[in-house]
Amino acid sequence: MALILPLGFQFAGVRCGLKNKRNDLGLIVSEHKAIAAGVFTTNQVRAACVDHSRSVISGGLLQALVVNSGNANCCTGPQGERDTLRMAELAASSLKLDPGLVAVGSTGVIGQPLDMTKVEKGILDASKKLGPDPVPFMNAILTTDLVEKWAAVGEGKIAVPGKVQTDLSAHVYGVAKGSGMIAPNMATMLSFIVSDYDVEGIDLDQVLRQATESSFNCMTVDGDTSTNDMLILMANGASRVKPDPAVFQYEVTQVCESLAKQVARDGEGATKLVEVQVTGTANPKQIARTIADSPLVKTAMFGCDPNWGRILMAAGRAGVPFSTADLHLTLHAGGESFVLFDHGQPADFDAKVVSTALKSDYVLIDLKIGEGEFARIYTCDFGYGYVRINAEYHT
Amino acid sequence: MALILPLGFQFAGVRCGLKNKRNDLGLIVSEHKAIAAGVFTTNQVRAACVDHSRSVISGGLLQALVVNSGNANCCTGPQGERDTLRMAELAASSLKLDPGLVAVGSTGVIGQPLDMTKVEKGILDASKKLGPDPVPFMNAILTTDLVEKWAAVGEGKIAVPGKVQTDLSAHVYGVAKGSGMIAPNMATMLSFIVSDYDVEGIDLDQVLRQATESSFNCMTVDGDTSTNDMLILMANGASRVKPDPAVFQYEVTQVCESLAKQVARDGEGATKLVEVQVTGTANPKQIARTIADSPLVKTAMFGCDPNWGRILMAAGRAGVPFSTADLHLTLHAGGESFVLFDHGQPADFDAKVVSTALKSDYVLIDLKIGEGEFARIYTCDFGYGYVRINAEYHT
Repeated sequence: MALILPLGFQFAGVRCGLKNKRNDLGLIVSEHKAIAAGVFTTNQVRAACVDHSRSVISGGLLQALVVNSGNANCCTGPQGERDTLRMAELAASSLKLDPGLVAVGSTGVIGQPLDMTKVEKGILDASKKLGPDPVPFMNAILTTDLVEKWAAVGEGKIAVPGKVQTDLSAHVYGVAKGSGMIAPNMATMLSFIVSDYDVEGIDLDQVLRQATESSFNCMTVDGDTSTNDMLILMANGASRVKPDPAVFQYEVTQVCESLAKQVARDGEGATKLVEVQVTGTANPKQIARTIADSPLVKTAMFGCDPNWGRILMAAGRAGVPFSTADLHLTLHAGGESFVLFDHGQPADFDAKVVSTALKSDYVLIDLKIGEGEFARIYTCDFGYGYVRINAEYHT
Repeated sequence: MALILPLGFQFAGVRCGLKNKRNDLGLIVSEHKAIAAGVFTTNQVRAACVDHSRSVISGGLLQALVVNSGNANCCTGPQGERDTLRMAELAASSLKLDPGLVAVGSTGVIGQPLDMTKVEKGILDASKKLGPDPVPFMNAILTTDLVEKWAAVGEGKIAVPGKVQTDLSAHVYGVAKGSGMIAPNMATMLSFIVSDYDVEGIDLDQVLRQATESSFNCMTVDGDTSTNDMLILMANGASRVKPDPAVFQYEVTQVCESLAKQVARDGEGATKLVEVQVTGTANPKQIARTIADSPLVKTAMFGCDPNWGRILMAAGRAGVPFSTADLHLTLHAGGESFVLFDHGQPADFDAKVVSTALKSDYVLIDLKIGEGEFARIYTCDFGYGYVRINAEYHT
């Protein structure tokens, strides 16, 4: 028995020619109008599609999403606004929908006009290829991503890439793209989540914001926030299941957290997922973020170097008061734990052994400054690959 | 006729063995007690030498500086405090000075105890080699720096590396080290400035803070702020010249700005000095800093890519409100100027021509958002070299 995705949604992904090789135009369509919520980039410089989709979703309903990759259609002036609108209208007419129910997403290079001949052909093409398989859509939204990112949750179980629960009927399913220009000031990439729950009476916007807070807002690749970030949740009620609100919140949060980790792990040039957990002080999240954004910490993780001095340095520049004497730093990697700094004193550890453990594709940096709340930030290491991708990605 | 440095100062630099090849221990000594001011790192995690030197300078007088490289003596607990004090005391006894007039600086790896046998031998050795040549001292404070950094100002003229004014009697002379772990939250590296002016009646602390604001506080290499940063100014009055306060401020500022640019240009792995100037809005400095710290902008500069979308993206995430329609972006490189974004619209430019110009070792990113004040931040590009230095620099 296969993984069953939320009912009443169809997907398509085609190659219209904005990119050389991969799919670059995708559609998600719900058979009925869906209740929708969205979270969007906080960047002052925004693509037209961000303003358009925010406006559409402010009405509370959505029936389709049209997304292109290869061109962000950002900083393209009034022509860019017209092109976004045209994408929504053409998708709506092809699908026989109200254009006021179609959101638009774009990702790729900034500042170049969209080749609408290609995009229009792509939308017409995609609208004829709708089906239950989300993979062509997933591929259509990727840019420098190396892997597809998805998560499905239902019945208390989760399915993610490589770990498919074959007997799972998922009521919440999400996909994401993103590997550079990613930081935690909201939406931080493209992510689309669909659900077949009947969510009448549930504040979808509140559910999505709460899920975002512990997932996409806790993720950073390079500290840069894109102009085009959007996260959209649609719930169409097709399963006729009315979820317990707490279960629904849990499932949406699970999907968002899994996607956020997948995005961090697939950061441009990354070789590992790095989680930074800070406990205590007035603002553990600020300290965790500063550590996670530090190029010196990230290059040390890339070099498998247990250079705890850089971690403490980054903590110290976060602008949150603490005493060095209270610091206690543990690294968890390769199934082992190593204390590197023990309540204000360098700990005795075998650097070679820790360095070998850091070759793992998952590292948890665990800094305790005192009792109290903890915060966790998802990031990745920082190596030659990031420079290669971003210095050689010519406009 | 040679460049004449401020009178009444002697320098020494020796290799005591903390590093493999280069000098690693230095002294600056004034023949008389000098009036002194200092600015220190704002990092919560600080080396003992920072607290020690701040305390010494709070008395307003200083006669000598002892500095080691190769070991930051930071996060080394009470032993680190004792070792800093021992450095000051040994330098004082060797030089027959009051130990309360000796500042201490350290730079290098964090968290390892200082090898005091080597340091003590180095201090004794250096105290016998004092002389007028500052080069051995300059070398002794470098870590991953590729070049020496100094500037001398007097009589309205400036001398810097490669541009020596042979007929200049300089009253203000400064040296600096720094190429990684550098960001603008103050002091941002080691810098020592000496002057033979008689500054009685001048608020030296105020002069140094004002000079810092437009120089070291406008510089960023990687956004990380070190645990050991210090900038110290000593004026011993040996020339018996009482400067006009405005002239003195100007000369100290000139030295600091030149050193800040030299540090930015020698950023780890850097191939060029990048200046970011932003004009208009409520907070142009915040926007300039965000652009200068953006890994995506810095890798584009490394790749000689006129990717203005990344510059606008970084401006937009600075948290300062503005309208995209007001943005006007010009790049100055290789002696030419190129408008890339023209009041809200992409400008027409030849990407190949701009890319060729960006091969220059100096680029000015000039973003106008409106009328009003401007701010300028000094930084560098971000390439494979940074990753190599910081991933392969093992603790």
